[in-house]
Amino acid sequence: MNSEKQLQDFFLKGEQTYVPRVSVDCVIFGFHSDQLKVLLLRWKEGRLCLPGGFVKWQESVDDSAVRTLKERTGLENIYLQQFHTFGAPDREKGKKLIGIPDTKKSWMRERFISVGYYALVEFSKVNPQPDWLSDECRWCDIHEVPRLIYDHNEMVKKALEKLRLSLNDYPAGYNLLPERFTMPELQRLYETILDKPLDRRNFQKKMLAIGILERLKERKTGGAHKAPFLYRFDKKKYERAMKSGLKFGF
Amino acid sequence: MNSEKQLQDFFLKGEQTYVPRVSVDCVIFGFHSDQLKVLLLRWKEGRLCLPGGFVKWQESVDDSAVRTLKERTGLENIYLQQFHTFGAPDREKGKKLIGIPDTKKSWMRERFISVGYYALVEFSKVNPQPDWLSDECRWCDIHEVPRLIYDHNEMVKKALEKLRLSLNDYPAGYNLLPERFTMPELQRLYETILDKPLDRRNFQKKMLAIGILERLKERKTGGAHKAPFLYRFDKKKYERAMKSGLKFGF
Repeated sequence: MNSEKQLQDFFLKGEQTYVPRVSVDCVIFGFHSDQLKVLLLRWKEGRLCLPGGFVKWQESVDDSAVRTLKERTGLENIYLQQFHTFGAPDREKGKKLIGIPDTKKSWMRERFISVGYYALVEFSKVNPQPDWLSDECRWCDIHEVPRLIYDHNEMVKKALEKLRLSLNDYPAGYNLLPERFTMPELQRLYETILDKPLDRRNFQKKMLAIGILERLKERKTGGAHKAPFLYRFDKKKYERAMKSGLKFGF
Repeated sequence: MNSEKQLQDFFLKGEQTYVPRVSVDCVIFGFHSDQLKVLLLRWKEGRLCLPGGFVKWQESVDDSAVRTLKERTGLENIYLQQFHTFGAPDREKGKKLIGIPDTKKSWMRERFISVGYYALVEFSKVNPQPDWLSDECRWCDIHEVPRLIYDHNEMVKKALEKLRLSLNDYPAGYNLLPERFTMPELQRLYETILDKPLDRRNFQKKMLAIGILERLKERKTGGAHKAPFLYRFDKKKYERAMKSGLKFGF
């Protein structure tokens, strides 16, 4: 089926497969070269957007986000967090259904409410895949996100706010760093997410106090300085901390 | 219009007023006599549920939650936080449309996704109002919440989890306590929400360090012990902290 015919079918009969009025959008964060990046799609007609999708009739909203993430990144079992639902009545201003006449009835003309999820993925493991509406899927530095469709810029902003707050409650890094990393690498991840410098000693103290890091016997080699220790996350302890929270506050 | 006719109209023509497939549900927390309470409705047919509502065509999802809160409590300008969207395909198992035949088509038979909000209100200011489907609206101790319809027990559980986590990020108390309160009263509020005892000295230190409390000249009178100081929130500083977060962690 050519993509024009596929698009027409989607506009005219999509509600046979998907629940109308509800969509999901995913802010997929990756970390590379001390940059926090986010995955963007470019539609064939040119506009940029977040990877998103619709909810199948027998599927939960959460599962449709998991499916979307897998389709765009190839990854499963990824940290995926529902962070906000976007429900302004005019949020899809400028929606155009290309390929069908304006007079034709379509479930896609209706007002949609979108459930936002953010995911943390290891950059190097991702092979970005465009969807059938798009000709490009690529990483973009969080500081250089261009104008996106609808309220997608607001989604990126809100996801980043929630990710930052989540660092007070849950450890980060398991899905964003390679398996073995140094303390400076972990600190740079936190500094990049928070977009501010952190005190080296306090950071190390705090991180070790959480008790989820395992220091390895090997040290990192190749640098000019004294070789730093390598760490990895103790997966069981990490998962326990993800469940119970860090309790930095109360 | 009698309520039977009103119900029929709602089932058969409600989508003229409300967006189908999307609802809101509110977990309204109040604090009284060292108990955390939640507001429940009893439908005329007997089942218990959270106060909820639907989204008008020209209304945002957030605004529909504000409207629902006002209708049930009489209160405006209340701390209301969207906390999770519930989207399991079978979440409304056992839905019955009383008063119309099973064969009759209704927008209410369709699968709904519900956006959950929690609110913090001052118990003494609330005059609980049943909606037109209900004959009772009353407070219930958080530890004694009975079986509610659909996934509403899960909503209460999740809202409480999020409220607890939020104490690490944002101050609480402004909407839950009277205008003037003592440090032990504030501590009991936190202990009640967290459902665990807190160290008195640490609590006081932490609370004063946030810099949003103003100690008044008067002391509380009437007790047998040395009269404790009265405090109130510095509204400007409180609001700033609600915006920027407390940063206990990073």
